[in-house]
Amino acid sequence: MNERETLKNVDGKLVVGGVSCESLSKKYGTPLYVVDQCYIENMCTVFRDTLKSEYGDGMIAYASKAFSCKEIYRIVNRMGIGADSVSGGEIFTAKSVGFPMEKICFHGNNKTLNELNLALDCGVGLIVVDSFYEADLLNSLCEQKNTVQRVLIRVNPGVEAHTHHFIQTAKVDSKFGFSIDNGDALEIIEHVQSLSNLKLEGLHCHIGSQIFESKSFILAVEKMTDFYKLLKEENGFEFDVLNLGGGFGIWYADGDSKKSCNDYAEYIKLISKTLLDCVNRKGIKKPFLILEPGRSIVGEAGLTLYTAGAVKEIKNVKNYVAIDGGMFDNPRFALYQAKYTVVSANKLNEPKNFKCTIAGKCCESGDIIAEDCLLPTVNTGDLIAVLSTGAYNYSMASNYNRNLIPPVVMVKDGESRYAVLPQNYEDLVRNDV
Amino acid sequence: MNERETLKNVDGKLVVGGVSCESLSKKYGTPLYVVDQCYIENMCTVFRDTLKSEYGDGMIAYASKAFSCKEIYRIVNRMGIGADSVSGGEIFTAKSVGFPMEKICFHGNNKTLNELNLALDCGVGLIVVDSFYEADLLNSLCEQKNTVQRVLIRVNPGVEAHTHHFIQTAKVDSKFGFSIDNGDALEIIEHVQSLSNLKLEGLHCHIGSQIFESKSFILAVEKMTDFYKLLKEENGFEFDVLNLGGGFGIWYADGDSKKSCNDYAEYIKLISKTLLDCVNRKGIKKPFLILEPGRSIVGEAGLTLYTAGAVKEIKNVKNYVAIDGGMFDNPRFALYQAKYTVVSANKLNEPKNFKCTIAGKCCESGDIIAEDCLLPTVNTGDLIAVLSTGAYNYSMASNYNRNLIPPVVMVKDGESRYAVLPQNYEDLVRNDV
Repeated sequence: MNERETLKNVDGKLVVGGVSCESLSKKYGTPLYVVDQCYIENMCTVFRDTLKSEYGDGMIAYASKAFSCKEIYRIVNRMGIGADSVSGGEIFTAKSVGFPMEKICFHGNNKTLNELNLALDCGVGLIVVDSFYEADLLNSLCEQKNTVQRVLIRVNPGVEAHTHHFIQTAKVDSKFGFSIDNGDALEIIEHVQSLSNLKLEGLHCHIGSQIFESKSFILAVEKMTDFYKLLKEENGFEFDVLNLGGGFGIWYADGDSKKSCNDYAEYIKLISKTLLDCVNRKGIKKPFLILEPGRSIVGEAGLTLYTAGAVKEIKNVKNYVAIDGGMFDNPRFALYQAKYTVVSANKLNEPKNFKCTIAGKCCESGDIIAEDCLLPTVNTGDLIAVLSTGAYNYSMASNYNRNLIPPVVMVKDGESRYAVLPQNYEDLVRNDV
Repeated sequence: MNERETLKNVDGKLVVGGVSCESLSKKYGTPLYVVDQCYIENMCTVFRDTLKSEYGDGMIAYASKAFSCKEIYRIVNRMGIGADSVSGGEIFTAKSVGFPMEKICFHGNNKTLNELNLALDCGVGLIVVDSFYEADLLNSLCEQKNTVQRVLIRVNPGVEAHTHHFIQTAKVDSKFGFSIDNGDALEIIEHVQSLSNLKLEGLHCHIGSQIFESKSFILAVEKMTDFYKLLKEENGFEFDVLNLGGGFGIWYADGDSKKSCNDYAEYIKLISKTLLDCVNRKGIKKPFLILEPGRSIVGEAGLTLYTAGAVKEIKNVKNYVAIDGGMFDNPRFALYQAKYTVVSANKLNEPKNFKCTIAGKCCESGDIIAEDCLLPTVNTGDLIAVLSTGAYNYSMASNYNRNLIPPVVMVKDGESRYAVLPQNYEDLVRNDV
């Protein structure tokens, strides 16, 4: 596998997927989401092949909530991996491009009746049950449709990944899943086993997001296999599937470790090795292993291009560079004070001597993209690139302030094409009476 | 003016605008934004009439970023008030229903070229200049179009309203406007005065949002009129217009003071009285006064209806009630830890003995709507109402997780009708290639 080469500095100008950001901004305008297709394909390959070679039977399911549109399902399908979806909308989008429904794992703490019906009618492979209510509802829907649905149950192994507290998910106090430690997990397992139209294939956990410590994953494997062992020995349940979720961290800014494809392969190797070891050591059946990377597949593949508008130097206070986007296309600073790396796309070789805050155009003081950026002197009209925006940017975008959501352009081998077309003002009022 | 009567308890069932929430949920489904038209009309009337009677020449401009769709511009136009808009999208929407463009005040820290062109072509009444760059750009566009545009300049009077730090805006450190105290404001005023295609009519300030202390508004009037006096005496500039922005607080939850229409009238009276007094005392021209309430006009007019899905009681930890909406229709808890009042719409008379967290359906632990709510025991299927969601809910909504943005229904005199139609899955993929 080649090292990622998505971003290049060619004579001081930023080039992505063989296309200069300057030409992209001229062709498509700004703000613009740019996604490097090769990066995504490489990551899919790394995850898929490493799982195959190091573990064997299993599936990588792309966590499509990170970035969902028709084109991404086409790409990951061509790469031979599955998808994790979290809504009827994601299932609908995947289905609309012929994504194989049996390779979809349907998650969520509160799937609606309509969504469960859609999932059943589409033939979604696995539904991850997250509540007693859902188990019963799903079972009765299956009875009506005279079908048996393969399901997993989401459990919380009690592993707390060291990350932003909003994205810790495997604690006892979580809206998701059932705690192993307090006995809730066993209770729902016994209940689901009693339902005749659900076939319980195994358990799912997800220990958090943006995790850099491989120790967390090892611990999760240990806890989950301990539980599989306990269930086998004390309850006579043996499972065929183990879904360990995702959560592999990516590089956003200084402070995040910069990872190569090989580093992600190492995660998979470690998980595989640990799981194989646990299976042998604990005498449980070797499960079909599902892993659900999302951010790590698309995050660093993306960048967002903006044009600098107003540059405001407030004496002795701060410099503000206002861009033509903002929290409507990237709400992650406003939501999580997320850090991003910002570069001046046509001035990569110029000395960075201008400290500034990158502000969005929304009428809200909290509409900031990044603080304390060190850039070459910024002039109005400069092309600004925010890196690592491939995940949770387009997917979280809104029309706040009635701004238009930027289009998404895929780049590969020096060519570019739309994946998502630009919105226009008519789109804003389409549903207005 | 009648006291607001938007919400009633009829035999334990919540009724809004004369329509029971139960019947609304049956007719339109959930999640559903419900907006009480009378409340909006009453608030428009209170603001408009009080300004007229207590001050005289002036205009209430509805800050449409709080809630923008065709129908709201129709309503506020019928009520005889203007609008504050912050994007081309808002101007487009207002224009599409024949809103009088001369009654629009166009704000924003980084209006784009396209937006300024649209505003000029539509004949927007006032454009509030926010940077040197924008002043020059606007002037050159006006030259090309052979027109003169009436403008204001946004300044920061240095009044810090006591509110959430993200929505303080009139400090020296702000992406908006120019500080009076450090001399930046005078510099931009002199610059704009030198531009032949801009007619500088006055200044604009906005001291923050969700403000309950009338002292802040008094202070802003004092500082702005001090500056008008200084500009007159030292620079010979006399202005015809003063735009004091908005920021009147509304009731969301315990801790916010519950206000009547009369309380808002008192704000306007106080501002009017203070300004008239300042005008006389400081010997300046009595300005045309523009006030821009947004949240206070629509916020408490709205509520969101949800259906309870999974109810999860984690022993000795917490109870979670999962609803069929979430941060995609109301991101304000995720963004600001905003507090909301939640009620069980069909159990208003039952004892509140169930403490719970209302969680959204997004695959994200931070997708919470409200914490520590005290409700009657919640069962799956219960109708849950979140109050005071008329502002910054629909306008901030997204398709995160590919969930559908709920429709907006207006209620009045026992009747209901769509203001914004429901999205469907086709809407999600409309721009997907």
